[in-house]
Amino acid sequence: MNPLELTGTELKQVLERVSARLCTFLDSLPDQPAWNISGAEEVARSVNKLLPVNARELDSVLDELFERLIPVAYNTASPGYFAYIPGGGLPQSGVADLIAAITNRYSTVWTAAPGAAQIESVVVRWFCGMVGYPESAGGFLTTGGSLANWSALTTARRTRLPDNFLNATVYTSDQAHHSIHKAALLAGFPVENVRSIEADADFRVCTKRLRAKIQEDREQGLRPFAVVGHAGTTNTGAIDDLEQLADLCDKEELWFHIDAAYGGFFAMTERGRLRMRGLDRADSITLDPHKGLFLPYGTGCLLVRDQQLLKIAHHVDGDYMPPMQTDNEFIDFCSISPELSRDWRGLRVWLPLQLHGSRAFQAALDEKLDLAEWATDQLRHLSLGPGDRIEIVAEPQLSLVAFRLLRDGVSGRALDQLNQELLEEINSSRRVFLTPTTLGGRFVIRICVLSFRTHLDRMQECIDEIQKALSALRES
Amino acid sequence: MNPLELTGTELKQVLERVSARLCTFLDSLPDQPAWNISGAEEVARSVNKLLPVNARELDSVLDELFERLIPVAYNTASPGYFAYIPGGGLPQSGVADLIAAITNRYSTVWTAAPGAAQIESVVVRWFCGMVGYPESAGGFLTTGGSLANWSALTTARRTRLPDNFLNATVYTSDQAHHSIHKAALLAGFPVENVRSIEADADFRVCTKRLRAKIQEDREQGLRPFAVVGHAGTTNTGAIDDLEQLADLCDKEELWFHIDAAYGGFFAMTERGRLRMRGLDRADSITLDPHKGLFLPYGTGCLLVRDQQLLKIAHHVDGDYMPPMQTDNEFIDFCSISPELSRDWRGLRVWLPLQLHGSRAFQAALDEKLDLAEWATDQLRHLSLGPGDRIEIVAEPQLSLVAFRLLRDGVSGRALDQLNQELLEEINSSRRVFLTPTTLGGRFVIRICVLSFRTHLDRMQECIDEIQKALSALRES
Repeated sequence: MNPLELTGTELKQVLERVSARLCTFLDSLPDQPAWNISGAEEVARSVNKLLPVNARELDSVLDELFERLIPVAYNTASPGYFAYIPGGGLPQSGVADLIAAITNRYSTVWTAAPGAAQIESVVVRWFCGMVGYPESAGGFLTTGGSLANWSALTTARRTRLPDNFLNATVYTSDQAHHSIHKAALLAGFPVENVRSIEADADFRVCTKRLRAKIQEDREQGLRPFAVVGHAGTTNTGAIDDLEQLADLCDKEELWFHIDAAYGGFFAMTERGRLRMRGLDRADSITLDPHKGLFLPYGTGCLLVRDQQLLKIAHHVDGDYMPPMQTDNEFIDFCSISPELSRDWRGLRVWLPLQLHGSRAFQAALDEKLDLAEWATDQLRHLSLGPGDRIEIVAEPQLSLVAFRLLRDGVSGRALDQLNQELLEEINSSRRVFLTPTTLGGRFVIRICVLSFRTHLDRMQECIDEIQKALSALRES
Repeated sequence: MNPLELTGTELKQVLERVSARLCTFLDSLPDQPAWNISGAEEVARSVNKLLPVNARELDSVLDELFERLIPVAYNTASPGYFAYIPGGGLPQSGVADLIAAITNRYSTVWTAAPGAAQIESVVVRWFCGMVGYPESAGGFLTTGGSLANWSALTTARRTRLPDNFLNATVYTSDQAHHSIHKAALLAGFPVENVRSIEADADFRVCTKRLRAKIQEDREQGLRPFAVVGHAGTTNTGAIDDLEQLADLCDKEELWFHIDAAYGGFFAMTERGRLRMRGLDRADSITLDPHKGLFLPYGTGCLLVRDQQLLKIAHHVDGDYMPPMQTDNEFIDFCSISPELSRDWRGLRVWLPLQLHGSRAFQAALDEKLDLAEWATDQLRHLSLGPGDRIEIVAEPQLSLVAFRLLRDGVSGRALDQLNQELLEEINSSRRVFLTPTTLGGRFVIRICVLSFRTHLDRMQECIDEIQKALSALRES
C-alpha cells in the first residue's frame, strides 16, 4: 500500500491527535490574545523550506502548526475579535469540511452526487426564503463575497449587455467595499466606468446624487447599467435605502445588486428584516455565511431573483461531461456558476443548521444587535478628561459602531493621530482587537461585534479597555 | 453559552463519532461500488426540507449523511473510479481542512496570519519549482481549474489589453476543456472570438493550422492575443507540442497559457517532465492539486511566470484594509488574486506533503503511468469474437487510454451504440466506473487512472470486467 493511503485505524489515530490539539485550542480561546503578530517575519521565514522529499512525524508537524504558526495571527476565532467583520468560525463547519473532503463528493454535477448537490440546493433555497425571494430565485455558494459580487456583475453583463459593454456604467456608494470595484474590473468594465456616489451623513448612498449622475451619464452617451447597494457596509454597517434604490432601478431599467455580505443574515431577525426592507427587490444579492452565519472563512453566496439568468450567463458544454439536468427540479451547479470541480461547500452550511436549528442562529444575531446598542450607550458614558468628548461617528445600523475621541483645540491630522494612539492603547492589552477606518477623511475606530463567541462579558471588557486607554492617554 | 459554541470536550465527542463513520467509510472503500445512483431522485427529494428551527441529534444527522446521502453518488474515492479525471481525495487534506476551519485563520492578508499566508506562499513556490519557473514567478491557489483558467485570461487581458479588448482573439485546441471557453466568456471576450483549432491524429493541437488562423485573423483586423495549450487534455490526456506553441507565441507576441490541470503534477516524475517539455515557457499555467496531487476536490492553482502581472491585474485598495506588504518578500494574496475573505486552502496541500514527502507522490504518479501502459497492452490482448477488434483511439500520453470496439460491418451510429452497450456492461458490476467521450464524432471509452488508491489489482479487475463485458455482448 502506498503510504498516502490511510486505513480507518490510521485515520482514527491521526484524528485523535488533531482532536486533542483542537480541544486545547477551543478551551483556551477566552485566554488567547485577540491578536498577536510578534515575530511575524521570523515565523513566516521558518516556513520557507524546500519541498520535503521524505516523510515527517505527525506530532512534529502539529507542533509547528499549533505552537508556532497558528498562534501568530489576528485571532479571528477569539471572542475579543471586534475587527473588520468577524464571524468566528463554527467548529461544526470544520467537521463538515472533514466529511466533505474524505468522502470527496462531486457536487457541481447533480447526477454525480445527488445527495451532496441537493444539500447545496436546499441551503440556497433557505437563503432565498430568508431574503424574501420568490420561487423563481436561485443561486450558488462561493468562497466569499468577492467572487459573489463578481458573479453578480458578470451575470448582469452576460444577460443584459451581450455585445459591447465598454460604455456601460456601474454605480455604487463611496462606502462600497472595494470588492465591488474589483468585481467590475474583473467582469470587464473599464475602471473609470465605476461611479462612487457620495453617501449621506448616515453613510447611506444619496439617491438624489445617484439619479443626477445617471442622468448626466446618459447625456454623455454612456450606458447606465447596474447599481450596487449595500445592506451593511464594511466601514460602518450602513444600510442604503433599498426601497428607493429599487424604485430608481425599476424606472431606469438598471440591474440592482445588493452587497449584503455583512448584513444579509440579520434578515433572520425581526429588527434586521425591518431595517433591510427592500432586500427582496434586488436582482441579485451577495451573502457571506462566513460572516453573519458564523462559518469559518470560505463560504459566500450569490442569490438571483431569476435563476434562469445564471444559466444563460454560465452554461457551456463539454463532450466528456456527465448527463445534465434538463428540467428545473434538480440543479447542476456547474451550469449556473463559474466553477466545475470544486469543494462540496454546501455541507459546512447545512450541518450546523441541522445540528442547532435556525433558532440558535437567530438568537445569536439578536444578541449581536443588542451588544452593539449596549456598547454605543456605554461609549456615551465613558469618564473623560476636561475638553474631551466621544463622537459616535456612525450609530449602529446593525452590529457595528464607529467612534472617535474629540479634544478641544485638536483637529485634522493631530486628531487622527490622537485616535490612532487611542486605538493602539486599546489593542495593547490584546483582550480585544479593534480596527480603524477612514470616514470623510477622518480616522475613526470601529467596534464590529459578530462572533458567536462574543457575549456581554467581553463587550464589557472592550468598554473597560477603551476607558483604561482613555485614562492612559490623558496621563501621557 | 450559546448552543453554537462547542467546548473542547464537546468537539472531541463530535469528532469521535464522525471519526468512527469515516473509518468505516475508508475501510469499506475497496468493497463499495465505484458508482451507485440508484434512487437518486428519491434520495435528493428527501433533502428538500424547510429550514429547521430546532436542534437535531448528531447521530441522526450522521445516519442521514453516511447511510443515505453520501453512498448514492459516483464514488470518486473508490479505487475503481477511472471516470473523468480521478484524484481520490487524500484524507490528510480533510484533516487539514478541519484544522484550517476551526482555527479560522485569514490567509489572504499576510499581516493577519503570517504563518498561514506563508504556507500558501511556500506551496506555490514548490509548484513553481516543479514546472521549472524562474524566481520571478508566483501564483495562488484557487478552488479548481475553472477559476485558474479564468484568472489566467483575466490577468492576460488586464495587463496586455487595458483598453478595448472586444476584437481580441483567443486560440485553443478543439480538445480544450470547456472551462477555457467559459473562462474567456467570463473574462469578457465575445464567444465568437474563441478559436477551436483542429487537433492532429494524436489529439495535439495542429500548430500549422493555428499559425494560419492567427494570420487570417490579423488580416481581418482582429487582434490575436492568447493561446491556450494543454498538458493533458481531459478527453485523452494529450499533450500539445508546448515548445512549438511557445515559439509561435514568442514570434506572434501572444500570451501563452497552459492548462495543465490534469497533467501538471506528472512534472514530479522523469517521464512527465520529458513529455511536457516547454511547460516552463508558458506565461501562465493551471494546475489542479485535486487531480494529480490526489487532494479532495477544492484546490486548483494558477502559476504565472511574472508575479508582478498578477498584482497589476488584481490590486485594488480599501480604507478599512489592514496594512499591506510593500516589498516582495511576503505576499498578500488578496492583492494578486480575485478573492479577499476565503478559506485557508494552503494547509490542505502543505500538510500531506509534510507528512509524506514528495517521494510518496512521485512514486504514486509513476505507478499511474505504468498502470495506463499496462492497461493499454492488456486491451490489445483481449480475447475477442470473430470480426471484432479493439481500437486504441488514444494511446496514453499520460495515464489515460481511450479505446473502442470495432466490428466488421458495423459503423457510424450503430458502432457508437455498440460501444455504449459495452460501456454500460463494463460499469454494471460497479467494481469499476469508466466514462465515454466523443472523438472526431466517434463514441469512445476512456480509462483514466489517477487515484492514489488504484493499484494493479483494480486495474486487472478493470481489464477483467472489460473482457467479461465483451463476452456478454457477444452472447446477447
